[in-house]
Amino acid sequence: MLDSIPSFARLVAELAKFPGVGKKTATRLAFSLLSRPQADAEALAEAVLDLHRNIGFCSVCFHMTEVDPCPICRDPARDERLLCVVEEPQDLLAIERSRSFRGRYHVLQGVLSPLDGIGPDDIRISELIRRLRKSAVEEVLIATNFTVEGDATALYLAEQIRPLNLRVTRLAHGIPTGSDLEFIDDATVHRAVEGRREL
Amino acid sequence: MLDSIPSFARLVAELAKFPGVGKKTATRLAFSLLSRPQADAEALAEAVLDLHRNIGFCSVCFHMTEVDPCPICRDPARDERLLCVVEEPQDLLAIERSRSFRGRYHVLQGVLSPLDGIGPDDIRISELIRRLRKSAVEEVLIATNFTVEGDATALYLAEQIRPLNLRVTRLAHGIPTGSDLEFIDDATVHRAVEGRREL
Repeated sequence: MLDSIPSFARLVAELAKFPGVGKKTATRLAFSLLSRPQADAEALAEAVLDLHRNIGFCSVCFHMTEVDPCPICRDPARDERLLCVVEEPQDLLAIERSRSFRGRYHVLQGVLSPLDGIGPDDIRISELIRRLRKSAVEEVLIATNFTVEGDATALYLAEQIRPLNLRVTRLAHGIPTGSDLEFIDDATVHRAVEGRREL
Repeated sequence: MLDSIPSFARLVAELAKFPGVGKKTATRLAFSLLSRPQADAEALAEAVLDLHRNIGFCSVCFHMTEVDPCPICRDPARDERLLCVVEEPQDLLAIERSRSFRGRYHVLQGVLSPLDGIGPDDIRISELIRRLRKSAVEEVLIATNFTVEGDATALYLAEQIRPLNLRVTRLAHGIPTGSDLEFIDDATVHRAVEGRREL
């Protein structure tokens, strides 16, 4: 049906490459773009092209940035004794949104995953160790995800950092805010009980 | 948080203009694009620009097309005695997918909606009447949506077409395939009973 409108079919195919976007959603998005002014399409295309053109990775922390070093690494108000290690830029943004951390970051750009062939040399671990050796960091907060791979990476990092005589911490496990105990998985409840604190 | 990465923030803002795409989804899409090769971004941008560049409306039926008249209007195998009137190109595509109709189409490019200030002169009704006057059409199948506006438009069209002495039909109302009576809304069940047929 779309074969007779190749430009439309091609846009649908490109949009359907996004994770979680199927052919139906892609078609809906393409129709919406077609019904909007051409200037909207031009602005979108420009923004898409600027993404790779303007964004690179910080040579210090490997967060995505348009200037090197990135604004967080440059910010003198950040506490240089605190370093938070995350898997991806998304995770850094989540911690920034929480306004709970005023140190600096190190983005691993991945997670150890032997099954996918991703070992310590494939993510930014050696850069982290080198950075810690010549820095004022006193505490490394490991904020990898609470998945099998994230936990394994946290343990591996802790081992690598121990010889440097730094404090190594991990985000707290527990019940998320606003949740109903009844619907929380057993492993989380188990860890929340283990990690219980004095009131 | 994204303010320090303006290129990223701008792409998120552009993606969030799509209906049904919130800021969270837009951020996810932007990250996915960033993690894919630059060639993917270039292909997407090109497809976005080609959309308005290459696609216009057929001067006969007002379906979207890259050639004028559109391939359906040119196709000699189509039955010129049958004309199906739809609101939008999406509706035409839905009927084509069903492979149940081999006539030609007329795309109104909208629907009568007095509350939104859309009257008969704002959609392609006069073009339809003019087209019918000098055509071989014998039956007009009105396939506007089964909404208040779609039904009103169908009634209005039927009135306009009656003086031309053509057969005017409407898509059948009824229970959708694969559905469970228990969960069908009352109005649909009501109409399915009214429209019951001999077995």
